[in-house]
Amino acid sequence: MSNKGITPRSENYSQWYLDIIERADLAENSAVRGCMVIKPYGYAIWENIQKNMGEMIKRAGVKNAYFPLFIPKSFLSREASHVKGFAKECAIVTHYRLKENSTGDGVEVDEKSKLEEELIVRPTSETIMYDTFSKWITSWRDLPLKINQWANIVRWEKRTRPFLRTAEFLWQEGHTVHSRHEEAEKEVLDRLNMYVTFAREYLAMHTYFGRKSESEKFAGALNTYGVEAMMQDGKALQFGTSHDLGQNFSKVFNIQFADKEGNMQNPWQTSWGTSTRMLGALIMSHSDDNGLVLPPKIAPIKVVVVPIFNDQNKEKVLAFCEEMRGELLEGIEDVEIDTRDFVSAGFKFNEWEKKGVPIRIEVGERDMNASSCVVVRRDSNEKLTVGLAELRERIGVLLEDIQESLLKKSEQNLISKTHRVGSYDEFKKHFEENEGFLVAGWCGSKECEDSIKYETKATTRCLTVEGEGKNGHCIYCGKDAHDEWIWAKSY
Amino acid sequence: MSNKGITPRSENYSQWYLDIIERADLAENSAVRGCMVIKPYGYAIWENIQKNMGEMIKRAGVKNAYFPLFIPKSFLSREASHVKGFAKECAIVTHYRLKENSTGDGVEVDEKSKLEEELIVRPTSETIMYDTFSKWITSWRDLPLKINQWANIVRWEKRTRPFLRTAEFLWQEGHTVHSRHEEAEKEVLDRLNMYVTFAREYLAMHTYFGRKSESEKFAGALNTYGVEAMMQDGKALQFGTSHDLGQNFSKVFNIQFADKEGNMQNPWQTSWGTSTRMLGALIMSHSDDNGLVLPPKIAPIKVVVVPIFNDQNKEKVLAFCEEMRGELLEGIEDVEIDTRDFVSAGFKFNEWEKKGVPIRIEVGERDMNASSCVVVRRDSNEKLTVGLAELRERIGVLLEDIQESLLKKSEQNLISKTHRVGSYDEFKKHFEENEGFLVAGWCGSKECEDSIKYETKATTRCLTVEGEGKNGHCIYCGKDAHDEWIWAKSY
Repeated sequence: MSNKGITPRSENYSQWYLDIIERADLAENSAVRGCMVIKPYGYAIWENIQKNMGEMIKRAGVKNAYFPLFIPKSFLSREASHVKGFAKECAIVTHYRLKENSTGDGVEVDEKSKLEEELIVRPTSETIMYDTFSKWITSWRDLPLKINQWANIVRWEKRTRPFLRTAEFLWQEGHTVHSRHEEAEKEVLDRLNMYVTFAREYLAMHTYFGRKSESEKFAGALNTYGVEAMMQDGKALQFGTSHDLGQNFSKVFNIQFADKEGNMQNPWQTSWGTSTRMLGALIMSHSDDNGLVLPPKIAPIKVVVVPIFNDQNKEKVLAFCEEMRGELLEGIEDVEIDTRDFVSAGFKFNEWEKKGVPIRIEVGERDMNASSCVVVRRDSNEKLTVGLAELRERIGVLLEDIQESLLKKSEQNLISKTHRVGSYDEFKKHFEENEGFLVAGWCGSKECEDSIKYETKATTRCLTVEGEGKNGHCIYCGKDAHDEWIWAKSY
Repeated sequence: MSNKGITPRSENYSQWYLDIIERADLAENSAVRGCMVIKPYGYAIWENIQKNMGEMIKRAGVKNAYFPLFIPKSFLSREASHVKGFAKECAIVTHYRLKENSTGDGVEVDEKSKLEEELIVRPTSETIMYDTFSKWITSWRDLPLKINQWANIVRWEKRTRPFLRTAEFLWQEGHTVHSRHEEAEKEVLDRLNMYVTFAREYLAMHTYFGRKSESEKFAGALNTYGVEAMMQDGKALQFGTSHDLGQNFSKVFNIQFADKEGNMQNPWQTSWGTSTRMLGALIMSHSDDNGLVLPPKIAPIKVVVVPIFNDQNKEKVLAFCEEMRGELLEGIEDVEIDTRDFVSAGFKFNEWEKKGVPIRIEVGERDMNASSCVVVRRDSNEKLTVGLAELRERIGVLLEDIQESLLKKSEQNLISKTHRVGSYDEFKKHFEENEGFLVAGWCGSKECEDSIKYETKATTRCLTVEGEGKNGHCIYCGKDAHDEWIWAKSY
């Protein structure tokens, strides 16, 4: 059975997700609570994300830098709402030395090494970065300043799930500083659009995006914008966020610039980030009951060649596969040949299927003699017999086609599972019985939002451009509503 | 003055180093003791190192992965000598929650959030990785396992210096597991040679390399091999290390594999690493009293074009520079045009000199009319007038020539400052009065090594292949010595 070991989605969606991560060799739990080990195959996907998004970030005129892992405790308290959002669950360094214990069989904390001020392992880097920015910025000529950091982050989450919510995760965080608010606002939306484009073009994920509500925004921001993807179970997954920080941080961290007239002003700031969470989104968007499905543009192995051989013709078939990669598939990137002789071809088919390699080529002596081979698409399981003369061209076209079909499927999933309802009863019923998002008017009051969340577990995900200014009635209280929001249960 | 703000080496070598880091915009201190901020220009050099060394590591069949930042305290104690070397000065996480303080103006550690077992911020990852390796490895078919990690590391150093010794630094750490000791030993030397090649080909640094003495080896290793570069002040800087871990860790972390006969065995392990320390080595190897000097292969900007213009011809000259980059310099990577109009050309010359850009092109209207431009080499300060028709070819050749000359200079520096002495009196005198390394016989006893270190501050750096088995007398005690070691004061 090709789905051996993977729980079907219909049976248990959460277990299916964990099974995929295990069977596709993406990550596993470590000895440290909530911290995962990202295995080579999972990390290779992350490296492809880093490479491609990294180029987009650089093209936007943002420069990479690196700031300290630790943040002095007092820094977190400077921005009043920031501390409330971030200073709660975090890893706190209190000592800097161990000593041999009295029984001589281990080590213990040396109490003499207590730090005067505790250090927090960064849950996000606004405070430590902006302390430095205040030294870098003195004049309008220093603006805009655009910095990005690829780093590890720690948030002491109670319930963790690989990629989606882990105590330690990897991310990029961009931080920009501008002389005018309009310029900062443009940056916030430009980076939001960059994330949307990246999700579409590389991860083959169609998304909704727009402003978040007051209760969902980043601690310390004027406004937060988010990109929301829909998973196959109809739940929303926040893919990335982009924040308009206003002057909230520049005021408390004393960032000031002399404008062209020589007046000192506080600049306007933005921050924006995406993380290894994207891998969770990727897994849950495209995979099926047979395992992972990867869009070719982000797949570490785009084509796997599985030779079919016996003891007699092994050398001949393997030599042919090498020739195939070198000549027939010249120009096709990331082609792997599975040369193992201690597992069967069937075992290999199954394994590469679980790992989501977009195209599998099967080739044995009979195929060689017929100048053809068998090509299998991972996304549709379609099997084709392809003549060797046209192999390169066909594989090139197939890779593009798989990328496009996955995006189309994601688009259809998102659109077909986004509904409208006429009443709050229907709204409630939807989230009790159905999958997917709802579009509904909301008066904007925290009370209505909280009640809905309490009663249905659904929250506002974002206010899209289409929903903005769409007059109607609040789905909860019935009063006038000026916007239509996207509502969903979320990860 | 072009060296304004940079202390000459002859006056104060340590201050010169710090001045270069500041004036070339490489890094600066942060609010957290011993942790530096790596600024965009410094980080771009690190990214070039990562990219090029990363490719070498992948070509060696090693796969990247990511392991947790935290290590349970008990893990460090498992390997007896490892804990002695690493468990002393480190950052210890004891709590996971902050709460509002009683005065309401800040946060304090919530004592209720004390961890049952403290977590150590990784000072190196052997213990946390090998705990996981024990699950990955069951059979000879799982070997060799070759994993590399790019990560941040924390060691609570008392005295810190940017890049050379910081509480937090960035590095790569490779970890491999083999079924036979000979195979592990080969890996140790292959990776050592990889570092030597990288230093030569990319950083233009000639080095000595070989086995380290017992007292200088890695805590927990059978043998450590090191690459030693010579700085301009004649001191040694350890550039990278490669360790033969034997079965020391596989035994305590219960890594076992079934060999082909079905017998359970402990495998043989290696680990090897290089860090942001390389940037310190790079700075101290090539730079001069005018600032940083970078080898072209690792320079983030290889060619800077400084347009010379006034208000009248500004547009014309800038348009010409763009055309130059697009056409005349087509194929030359990382060309930057300094378009700023609020600083003088002279200011720009000075700034790019400090930043170590290998080639500067100066072009004004007069040059345009003469179909030529002025080209200045950073390494030699040589000024050439080059016709535009031959510009691309000349720049290509010059970049190669700069790379080669820097390596040749490094080679000459290393060789001309490596001496032999006839007696311990001369040995002592050398390290009191002169710069550079000594080659000297050593009987191998810890007593002699310790006495020499105490009396001269010089230590054994490594035993090169040339020095191995060279019979003679111990420079200290006069007894028989079977090897000649490299001795130096070191960073």
